[in-house]
Amino acid sequence: MSSATNFQTCSSVLITGASRGLGLQMVDSLASGGFSPGHIIAAARKPASAQKLQELAERHSNIHIIRLDVVSQESIEESVEEVAQLVQEEGLNCLINNAGIKVVADFNTVTAEKMIENFHTNAVAPLMITKAFLPLLKQAASRGGAGASKSMGIQRAAVINMTSLLGSVELNWGERADNFKWYPYRTSKSALNMVSRCMAVDLEPDGILCMAIHPGWVSTDMGGAEAPLSPEESVSSILSVIGGLTEKDHGSFLNYTGEVLPW
Amino acid sequence: MSSATNFQTCSSVLITGASRGLGLQMVDSLASGGFSPGHIIAAARKPASAQKLQELAERHSNIHIIRLDVVSQESIEESVEEVAQLVQEEGLNCLINNAGIKVVADFNTVTAEKMIENFHTNAVAPLMITKAFLPLLKQAASRGGAGASKSMGIQRAAVINMTSLLGSVELNWGERADNFKWYPYRTSKSALNMVSRCMAVDLEPDGILCMAIHPGWVSTDMGGAEAPLSPEESVSSILSVIGGLTEKDHGSFLNYTGEVLPW
Repeated sequence: MSSATNFQTCSSVLITGASRGLGLQMVDSLASGGFSPGHIIAAARKPASAQKLQELAERHSNIHIIRLDVVSQESIEESVEEVAQLVQEEGLNCLINNAGIKVVADFNTVTAEKMIENFHTNAVAPLMITKAFLPLLKQAASRGGAGASKSMGIQRAAVINMTSLLGSVELNWGERADNFKWYPYRTSKSALNMVSRCMAVDLEPDGILCMAIHPGWVSTDMGGAEAPLSPEESVSSILSVIGGLTEKDHGSFLNYTGEVLPW
Repeated sequence: MSSATNFQTCSSVLITGASRGLGLQMVDSLASGGFSPGHIIAAARKPASAQKLQELAERHSNIHIIRLDVVSQESIEESVEEVAQLVQEEGLNCLINNAGIKVVADFNTVTAEKMIENFHTNAVAPLMITKAFLPLLKQAASRGGAGASKSMGIQRAAVINMTSLLGSVELNWGERADNFKWYPYRTSKSALNMVSRCMAVDLEPDGILCMAIHPGWVSTDMGGAEAPLSPEESVSSILSVIGGLTEKDHGSFLNYTGEVLPW
């Protein structure tokens, strides 16, 4: 089964950080799948220089590229207006907060500025973006999705936060803590996990699913060449998990394989 | 047994945010205990207006008031020099990162600025302060404490981070999530928990214990009048827990009662 099959009931998906890495791969896999969403909205900070994304959009008419600088409130609000024009009264089914940066600094090299920079992009931006897109998500959720089922999932509305295993405080111990001593990155992802959980509590009354997913260690610009997973493998698995999300996954922290991870 | 009894082997303790609330109570309880540390260093952002702290210092000659604005790197570095003069070659046994603020904002009212403000004070400042005091903590740890025991604890060196139950992502669910929907505060404390865990990993080789403790819901300016615990009760319990910390508590997240809390 193609990983995109699960997206057959999802009319619109917005992916932030879509110019490269996992974001670009998600756009590619969704567009190439057998059941491609009607609107694949690919947000990038600098669309003009997003060459590969532009090439994809030329081949698939359902890919729409929009500009979004996730740390700019003005840019967030402009992107909402653009997406509203695209999706009209159907609203937005799936928001994937994928944009993120990795600020690498250990105990000796970390500074307040590095901590705040990573926190802003990785934890605060997904919150501010979700807030801004709430009206469109509510619109999609209230329509109830295919078959007017009132169950939760991407056929109604969902917010997916791309987090990291490195944001697990529990797992940051023993052998697992010997590597990747990146204070800004780890802390930003722990913070995102709390933001994700807080939002799950607040979005539930509107029937909007919210969860956080770890994409695995992937050979992207961020993950580096030694990573064991290819972007295709990771995204195939991620899209399969996202497509199958139901109430039981609301507020969860899942691995790309679908397993529950400790906070 | 007086809660301060456990501090009989601790020569010096530094408490940030000591002008009011739990910080002031910790200074008071430690100074009034039967086995008071030789140096109780009370750090406040504005010592000149810390009336109650000044009154305490007039009654107890082992209380030293220093100026420390926890979000200013310059102020942190100045405070290290001042503490170094006080403790001399004995170093600093116990650093209690107690200073914190509570920025209250729910999903509707939260802004990026509010998130960053709370994160900086509650999560980044304890990291930058601990980094700056590392030489003094290492000095104390290398001396080995009473009986030259090489076990971990406040007789050698310890970093205590005052966190909150509200920083537990695990517990932010169900009935527990119905109240205190404070995005900036909850997120800052989750971030502090990760910082605490990261620091525990990095401080271990030097024999410096590091952990995070929840003080309970206390009737201070921050906790409000309806809180069930008095500052005296909370601090008595906190000091008892801190005084009894050993290797097994390194890297932990404990309640003021000594129980382990989920991340």
